[in-house]
Amino acid sequence: MSVQSFVEERRDAFIAMRRDFHMYPEPGWLEYRSAAKVAARLIELGYDVAIGADVLDLDSRMGLPGDEIMKAAMNRAVEEGADPELVEKMGYGKTAIVATMKFDDDGPTVAFRADMDSNDVIESNEAGHIPADKGFRSRHDKAMHACGHDTHMTMGLGLAEYVATHKKTFKGTIKLIFQPAEEGVRGAKAMAEAGVVDDVDLMFGMHIGFNEKLSNCFACSDHGFLATTKLDAVFHGYSAHAGGSPEKAQNAMLAGCTAVLNLQAIARHSQGASRMNVGVFESGTGRNVTPDVAVLKLETRGATTEINDYMINRAKTIIKAAAEMHDCTYEITKQGETPAGRISDELALEVQKIIEPLGIFKEVPFDYSGGGSEDCAYFLNRVIDNGGKATYMVLGSAIKAPHHNPLFDIDEEDMLNGIIALGAIAEYYLKC
Amino acid sequence: MSVQSFVEERRDAFIAMRRDFHMYPEPGWLEYRSAAKVAARLIELGYDVAIGADVLDLDSRMGLPGDEIMKAAMNRAVEEGADPELVEKMGYGKTAIVATMKFDDDGPTVAFRADMDSNDVIESNEAGHIPADKGFRSRHDKAMHACGHDTHMTMGLGLAEYVATHKKTFKGTIKLIFQPAEEGVRGAKAMAEAGVVDDVDLMFGMHIGFNEKLSNCFACSDHGFLATTKLDAVFHGYSAHAGGSPEKAQNAMLAGCTAVLNLQAIARHSQGASRMNVGVFESGTGRNVTPDVAVLKLETRGATTEINDYMINRAKTIIKAAAEMHDCTYEITKQGETPAGRISDELALEVQKIIEPLGIFKEVPFDYSGGGSEDCAYFLNRVIDNGGKATYMVLGSAIKAPHHNPLFDIDEEDMLNGIIALGAIAEYYLKC
Amino acid sequence: MSVQSFVEERRDAFIAMRRDFHMYPEPGWLEYRSAAKVAARLIELGYDVAIGADVLDLDSRMGLPGDEIMKAAMNRAVEEGADPELVEKMGYGKTAIVATMKFDDDGPTVAFRADMDSNDVIESNEAGHIPADKGFRSRHDKAMHACGHDTHMTMGLGLAEYVATHKKTFKGTIKLIFQPAEEGVRGAKAMAEAGVVDDVDLMFGMHIGFNEKLSNCFACSDHGFLATTKLDAVFHGYSAHAGGSPEKAQNAMLAGCTAVLNLQAIARHSQGASRMNVGVFESGTGRNVTPDVAVLKLETRGATTEINDYMINRAKTIIKAAAEMHDCTYEITKQGETPAGRISDELALEVQKIIEPLGIFKEVPFDYSGGGSEDCAYFLNRVIDNGGKATYMVLGSAIKAPHHNPLFDIDEEDMLNGIIALGAIAEYYLKC
Amino acid sequence: MSVQSFVEERRDAFIAMRRDFHMYPEPGWLEYRSAAKVAARLIELGYDVAIGADVLDLDSRMGLPGDEIMKAAMNRAVEEGADPELVEKMGYGKTAIVATMKFDDDGPTVAFRADMDSNDVIESNEAGHIPADKGFRSRHDKAMHACGHDTHMTMGLGLAEYVATHKKTFKGTIKLIFQPAEEGVRGAKAMAEAGVVDDVDLMFGMHIGFNEKLSNCFACSDHGFLATTKLDAVFHGYSAHAGGSPEKAQNAMLAGCTAVLNLQAIARHSQGASRMNVGVFESGTGRNVTPDVAVLKLETRGATTEINDYMINRAKTIIKAAAEMHDCTYEITKQGETPAGRISDELALEVQKIIEPLGIFKEVPFDYSGGGSEDCAYFLNRVIDNGGKATYMVLGSAIKAPHHNPLFDIDEEDMLNGIIALGAIAEYYLKC
Repeated sequence: MSVQSFVEERRDAFIAMRRDFHMYPEPGWLEYRSAAKVAARLIELGYDVAIGADVLDLDSRMGLPGDEIMKAAMNRAVEEGADPELVEKMGYGKTAIVATMKFDDDGPTVAFRADMDSNDVIESNEAGHIPADKGFRSRHDKAMHACGHDTHMTMGLGLAEYVATHKKTFKGTIKLIFQPAEEGVRGAKAMAEAGVVDDVDLMFGMHIGFNEKLSNCFACSDHGFLATTKLDAVFHGYSAHAGGSPEKAQNAMLAGCTAVLNLQAIARHSQGASRMNVGVFESGTGRNVTPDVAVLKLETRGATTEINDYMINRAKTIIKAAAEMHDCTYEITKQGETPAGRISDELALEVQKIIEPLGIFKEVPFDYSGGGSEDCAYFLNRVIDNGGKATYMVLGSAIKAPHHNPLFDIDEEDMLNGIIALGAIAEYYLKC
Repeated sequence: MSVQSFVEERRDAFIAMRRDFHMYPEPGWLEYRSAAKVAARLIELGYDVAIGADVLDLDSRMGLPGDEIMKAAMNRAVEEGADPELVEKMGYGKTAIVATMKFDDDGPTVAFRADMDSNDVIESNEAGHIPADKGFRSRHDKAMHACGHDTHMTMGLGLAEYVATHKKTFKGTIKLIFQPAEEGVRGAKAMAEAGVVDDVDLMFGMHIGFNEKLSNCFACSDHGFLATTKLDAVFHGYSAHAGGSPEKAQNAMLAGCTAVLNLQAIARHSQGASRMNVGVFESGTGRNVTPDVAVLKLETRGATTEINDYMINRAKTIIKAAAEMHDCTYEITKQGETPAGRISDELALEVQKIIEPLGIFKEVPFDYSGGGSEDCAYFLNRVIDNGGKATYMVLGSAIKAPHHNPLFDIDEEDMLNGIIALGAIAEYYLKC
Repeated sequence: MSVQSFVEERRDAFIAMRRDFHMYPEPGWLEYRSAAKVAARLIELGYDVAIGADVLDLDSRMGLPGDEIMKAAMNRAVEEGADPELVEKMGYGKTAIVATMKFDDDGPTVAFRADMDSNDVIESNEAGHIPADKGFRSRHDKAMHACGHDTHMTMGLGLAEYVATHKKTFKGTIKLIFQPAEEGVRGAKAMAEAGVVDDVDLMFGMHIGFNEKLSNCFACSDHGFLATTKLDAVFHGYSAHAGGSPEKAQNAMLAGCTAVLNLQAIARHSQGASRMNVGVFESGTGRNVTPDVAVLKLETRGATTEINDYMINRAKTIIKAAAEMHDCTYEITKQGETPAGRISDELALEVQKIIEPLGIFKEVPFDYSGGGSEDCAYFLNRVIDNGGKATYMVLGSAIKAPHHNPLFDIDEEDMLNGIIALGAIAEYYLKC
Repeated sequence: MSVQSFVEERRDAFIAMRRDFHMYPEPGWLEYRSAAKVAARLIELGYDVAIGADVLDLDSRMGLPGDEIMKAAMNRAVEEGADPELVEKMGYGKTAIVATMKFDDDGPTVAFRADMDSNDVIESNEAGHIPADKGFRSRHDKAMHACGHDTHMTMGLGLAEYVATHKKTFKGTIKLIFQPAEEGVRGAKAMAEAGVVDDVDLMFGMHIGFNEKLSNCFACSDHGFLATTKLDAVFHGYSAHAGGSPEKAQNAMLAGCTAVLNLQAIARHSQGASRMNVGVFESGTGRNVTPDVAVLKLETRGATTEINDYMINRAKTIIKAAAEMHDCTYEITKQGETPAGRISDELALEVQKIIEPLGIFKEVPFDYSGGGSEDCAYFLNRVIDNGGKATYMVLGSAIKAPHHNPLFDIDEEDMLNGIIALGAIAEYYLKC
């Protein structure tokens, strides 16, 4: 059966699968239910499935939540239907899955990567927001699949099913990587450092969405990845009675506010795009107490590692000085990081030749540069460094609101087309 | 028995009572366990006890928590030993108690006021902090008696017990007011508007602590109350992907930070003390999302109502402009307010003559101006407006850290002396 | 002739004298024309006149202008009618005058002090502003007598004339101190350190104006002097092309703006009034060059020296951190300073008894606390330290706009009454 | 004679000419001496020289200085050797020159443009700065040729001389445009609107310098021009005595500082480069007066007009809100503006073919994108709109410090090579 026919036949199943993932969003390193569902299905399909510590270099993980949070997430996952054994096997901070199916020794090893985590966003409950209207809005507090990773998992499993059910027609080896903690670029480094792509000849990453202009298009590469670093900064001061002894304050909130304004005011870089975002700021314990603590969660980005380094260095200088200005102490901790990613242009050109003839996309541009950051870069760069080829593709979808917005939603038809595209790529390289 | 002997005999009981209150701190309008314990004891002692809506003008309450929070606090109070009937009777937002004992028709009506609520402070667990060392540190998350209201309740009950057990020697009427939500100056107005002090001839408020210099001193008045207003400001913007479309942000955090710096920079007033504190600032949902919301909890103060009004007006102008600067909307809501309080100097001079001869205080100054705000002002001003007399006294204690600090603690000996002082005042005005 | 009659007879002359001073305002340490006119008149009246280095401890001068500015001011003064010899004698930074007339050995030494400098304000040319309407508006660029020192000199010379023309009726010694550079509190310290009041028994300072409420009143003391310190802060960065290499900037303007906001946001002090003003901020050389320099002229004040020190220390911390935040260097230099002033209450009470019977003032309050700073404090405190008595009086006048405002103006009738008041005080203590 | 030989022969003269221009830098619209020297030389060489109002649309001029400043500059120019008649002819704000030489009717009209104004920078006097070492440092206060326009005039005159002295070998028409006020992008629009390039077939702009990497290179186009707008913002408040009535202030400096920080913090744009620079900030009149005025000189830039518009709109919103935040009024005035410039790629490719064979440059890249703005864009775009071709070339030079820096200097050898390049281009298109 052709991949188009296969997807047509299974469309309801794939849509249901995506909606199930959507209802149970799990932040980075807490994807217990999602990963357990993924792993169970892959086992069922006959893949060799490696889980957790086998596919993670534990020291390379970044931005892990606390143990209590992980424990609670594990319990919740089981309550919500995850296989307890699989959850137990993952344990604290090890929600990574690699599925392999070897057809024969002749063909290449081709890898596809999907990510599984959700965003810290409260999903909209407005009429007109389809997940709300159709009853599959997030059931988890302050968590939402607002970046389409629910579709990434579904597309990965759709590809897995197509290949497994047609395995006699394939040669070589297929590798399916399901990565935790892409948000905050925290998870890929540990999988890459564990060597999971070291035997890979051809590496494919893909992302859905991006913006309306890309609606029903398929871009064969994204050369616009920004290098990024995620930092937490904490200021510690001294809290005094705001009416009775304000002069005794060491006001951590003023340190924080001064830092935020000056961080956003870091001079633009002439050599390319730079970014600064302080995404979270929390300070103070009570209205009539001078604030003795301020927490900032921020990120820098740069078109190149040099530009990102410039942003980090300026940020560190500003945070230090803001603390000293208000007689506070401070600490800065790194929560995530990724370099800019590389693309094999010839592979992207081949992809264009594979996808265009399918006739399912309005346009199939060689490149779309979205301006985001992606730790898929660790996989891409490692494969290329080892002599393989890699690209990162963009599956355009007419999203309703920007990524990470409470109203974010994709068109499920695009997801189905994504499975077809992945299947076509797999067939191109692995068909007997 | 003299009040000194009485307190000596009951010292262990009063210390235990205070420590019990200390362990179960409850924020304003949530004092279910505290108030239920207070009421139960007063009933036991034979007082007429009015509770809840009988002693509150419901529309004058300020800064009420949400219903869910109140419900949870009621459940917790019962779990922690409060009488379920009393808790039920209080219901949502009605944790006020007035106890009256009428001895005869001849003497004056004398009222004493204690407050019951705790602070939003995480109590220290350091060695050397006595509540931690002796095992009576707060058992509630993010709540602490860091302003001594645990001792206020204990002193009120100590006085209640002394009077009740010696009632044959008294004339006139005693009234004991246990007020909710003094922190944030949210509770007194509703009790005063309900008329609970309208029959009062002499009104006494008192506070423990303030600073080391006052150690073992008793000040007969506090002329330094500041008028104050408590405001919440919320900024609403638009959240965009920080890497992909930063220019689409309406950055509520920048609005908030700009507001905070400019609020703290409001010009000092030449006609007297002014204060500004932004005590809480929370903004943003995720590191890589531009922040679409910022919440500020702030307070203004002034030596006079005019100065406080100046601060409020400047604050409103700044908040409005900060919102507009970042294309955000905003709202401001009032959470509490109190005028500056008035003092009857002749009453304070009488108190000096009552307390000095007790010989239990190092010094008994006429006045100590602490620079705080107190909604006891509503009681004081109303009694004086009705032709009565009122004062607010300071029971000095060698506190270990400023009020509202995680290390705040008082000397329990001072609390015991406070009961003696209150007993002596009651005897002076109400003894047959 | 009584002092009233004397002033009535000479009223046109004194008004003309004041308007002449008003037309030629000279900033601190540049009062060459003013001081030369004063000295010439005092010599003419028969006083022993000491000038310049004889009445200045040169090392104690603060905030001197550059030599070129002083040279230009000297030339201008001569062009505008000052005696060249007197100007020459004063030389660079020595525009101080002390006139003494000894009547006999029996009486006390009584000193009066006037200041001579003007403000860096561009005088209004609006209709309705009397100096503009009547043609005696400032003829000097960016200089204006906007604090009434023109009347102070006139009143000093009026008193000098009355005493000199009636000297047979006086005993003891009169001393008339004409001080440079009161604005910025830069001049008094050097005169006090030179010992000019070390033989003084009774010391009188006086200021005209303050506000409308004081109109036609005479306050016998000012207990409200604030200690103050005047600082210059300079930030040095690096200027880059704003379009081509913004990331190379070390932006001194951002350092300066961050400092200004945080300086104004220094927490209020619970123990009394504090003040912060950054009065001047200049930064940058061109629109498309990132600013490599920023200059701030600021002042701190405090009700006590301790509070002023608190402000200075916080200011230094903030300026240092603001520089470091933007990779700039900085320096801070002190341009002026004065402690809070002391008052001999018994002397002020005597003054009240002298002035009230004159019947020329609406009210003669014991005290008016204006909230300013005055380096007359150096004279007052030194006389009191030496066992003498001192006070600082306020000659109320219905000013049209706040001091230092382009529309500032006093009522000349009040100035004439001021001469009468000074004459009455001199007669009280020095009349045979 | 070849252009190489010509330049070799005249090298000392051209170097002397450049140093003369360097010594007498004149800001935009004040280039009286420079323009008069240029015009005199062109007349001498036989060109038709149009001056002032003949080559300017007067209403399209932007950012003119005041009349008094222009008058003073005219006087100074004459004192420094400019022809008084030429200066008089230019008059106020008309320092523009166009020289034309028509060889015959057959060939094309080819235009070259040079700019003449200097920067508001104080030139370094450090040892090692060649203009200081060799005695040709700026003799004008706060003015410096820190952007190489001294060499642009010299190269224009060098080209003019080569062509004029070889005119028999040329056909068509050459047009030499000497533009005032390029700094601040204020002058080109008025010349373009006057139609001076409306008959031009081929248009060449050129700039020296940019950075070290470009040393001894020649880039045939600059596709990186940024659109830009120059704005002045003035805040008006109310000045009060900083000690006596700080609460009466309407503090224009705080408005200004808040604006500066928030302007620099405008979010980066995802669609291309953006810039913000507040280059000048001046506020306040005296240390103890609250500042009642603040002046900001700023510029926005954008890779496209849309991005520049985004910056302007955000800037206006911020300035308005900053004024309102501090109860100030404000006004914003436009001082200069230019769109992004367009390039005829085929012309740039031809230039590459002309310049490379000269063998005098290390490299001759097709493009160098410097990140600056240039109102030469008005000429380029107008020629292209009329069907002609245009490019803007970069003559790389190993500059010692960034453009507009006090240590900026170029290598005079590069300037000599620039004359050769221009001569070669003229010969290519205009040689018989």
